[in-house]
Amino acid sequence: MTDIAAIEAAAKRLKGVARRTPLLSSPFLDEIAGRRVFVKAECLQHTGSFKFRGAWSAVSALAPEVRARGVLAYSSGNHAQGVAMAAARHGVASVIIMPKDAPALKIANTRALGGEVVLYDRAGENREDIGQRIAKERGLTLIRPYDEPMVIAGQGTCGLEIAEQAAEEGIGQADVLVCCGGGGLTSGIALALEARAPGLRVRPAEPAGFDDTARSLAAGAPQRNPRMEGSLCDAIVTPEPGKITFPILQRLAGPGLVVSDAQALHAMALAWQRLKIVLEPGGAVALAAALFLPDQVQGDTVICIASGGNVDVEVFNRALALLDG
Amino acid sequence: MTDIAAIEAAAKRLKGVARRTPLLSSPFLDEIAGRRVFVKAECLQHTGSFKFRGAWSAVSALAPEVRARGVLAYSSGNHAQGVAMAAARHGVASVIIMPKDAPALKIANTRALGGEVVLYDRAGENREDIGQRIAKERGLTLIRPYDEPMVIAGQGTCGLEIAEQAAEEGIGQADVLVCCGGGGLTSGIALALEARAPGLRVRPAEPAGFDDTARSLAAGAPQRNPRMEGSLCDAIVTPEPGKITFPILQRLAGPGLVVSDAQALHAMALAWQRLKIVLEPGGAVALAAALFLPDQVQGDTVICIASGGNVDVEVFNRALALLDG
Repeated sequence: MTDIAAIEAAAKRLKGVARRTPLLSSPFLDEIAGRRVFVKAECLQHTGSFKFRGAWSAVSALAPEVRARGVLAYSSGNHAQGVAMAAARHGVASVIIMPKDAPALKIANTRALGGEVVLYDRAGENREDIGQRIAKERGLTLIRPYDEPMVIAGQGTCGLEIAEQAAEEGIGQADVLVCCGGGGLTSGIALALEARAPGLRVRPAEPAGFDDTARSLAAGAPQRNPRMEGSLCDAIVTPEPGKITFPILQRLAGPGLVVSDAQALHAMALAWQRLKIVLEPGGAVALAAALFLPDQVQGDTVICIASGGNVDVEVFNRALALLDG
Repeated sequence: MTDIAAIEAAAKRLKGVARRTPLLSSPFLDEIAGRRVFVKAECLQHTGSFKFRGAWSAVSALAPEVRARGVLAYSSGNHAQGVAMAAARHGVASVIIMPKDAPALKIANTRALGGEVVLYDRAGENREDIGQRIAKERGLTLIRPYDEPMVIAGQGTCGLEIAEQAAEEGIGQADVLVCCGGGGLTSGIALALEARAPGLRVRPAEPAGFDDTARSLAAGAPQRNPRMEGSLCDAIVTPEPGKITFPILQRLAGPGLVVSDAQALHAMALAWQRLKIVLEPGGAVALAAALFLPDQVQGDTVICIASGGNVDVEVFNRALALLDG
């Protein structure tokens, strides 16, 4: 069970290891959104996404003799890189189960960071089955991407920083939009804010067609996505909300926000132009919601998480092509 | 005269206004350079470059009745945006003298930030003459881009942060490579490090063909650039080293480093891929020197300033095209 004490403990393990990412802003983005927009730039975290927080939290929490046998993860890419780096910096092996259609850069990076990559077919195979089989065969510890208390605690450290940074900026009330796949980051931040900044309300942001969390929150019960492939926002496509994460979101999160791939690309371009940060589509959906769904956001200030920046050149060029001039 | 006391005073005026920019790194960049590489991401500063520090320092140091009449600046773009935003946030007018061939984004941004833009011909006209004439006509205070003690003090606050961040990382000795035009940032950082981190040595980085500071340091006397146009690194092309800044660099800086436009573009691409930050060519020359001139750098660790990120899409696409895959 993840609670504020577990998040504070994770923050101690992450101190001096994870980066305290900055909270960025631009008057040009404020003008588009019609309110103040703050962007928590987790793309600047080690390995280019917030996932390093949860991975380090989980690997560092293992008993030394368990950790020494190595770890295993299944991931569309960002969790993979986080676990590979966290394992390598602990001096232990990692096996990473990745979909065949993950961006080439993410697969190459995972290998370069020391991970042994095993590819699978996103449409026809179940990554959890594969991961559990290999973990059992080799004595590895499975580090789940979101339904894992120590991972949620690690992602929650991002929420502790937001609470501090919001206080520094004088923000007492705001919606906090979080790019949401399985809900590890969203639920971790929600728990941290509940304890440290109760005026801030978490809201999941998702791509259209893969909005299982928004629909689940509206229905009051978990809903599945009809398919798993076809989104530019590959980093945050999961079959359904997590079993551990969803009850946390039911208790603490506001309604979900849903943006198109085109809106995510436009947000990537504006983050490039106005904030000088690099986002991947799945890492830009929260900013896209802040900019392009202003009527669905409350208050004079909005905070959004820019959760990752591991994107191929081709997709990034499509985003930049949307800018005038 | 700028000294550590003036820099500390500027840091107090900038507190809660300027961002404390992060010190980033990537194992992939370490491998290219053959040593640890840390990047001070000043592209994440307000207005997309370090120039906001010096501009705020200078505008905030003016007597209120002087400031109320407004300020004037001449700039290829980044100083312009810094002065325009600093003036606007103080509620006073700004006039900005910019070259006709400055990137369109910089001109548009300067206007949007509240600056009145006056364009001039970089090859045929002298921006200092134009600036001083208009300042006199309208009673404005000229904020020089680098030969101005309060501006140097403001840029020096970046050096105070580097001293703190290097200590946090356990870095006692390193070359600190700084993208160098007129030398305001380079000399300000040099003064801060002299007082707060004497094991860190500043070294200017410049584009080939516009390496007036490197040649001036080698010759022991100011040398002019043969021309002013034709560099991709427009942000850091100045006629010659500053009258105030150069003696500081003579006393404190190591030898200059000189990179090609192609190397600057390649460094931009790697910063995009590995650090998730956006750099302009002139803001990437220090990183380019760290990555591509390893034999000219000393020690097992190098720190470089990524000084700005205000770049047009066309130039950025040229950089991304250099990446494999």
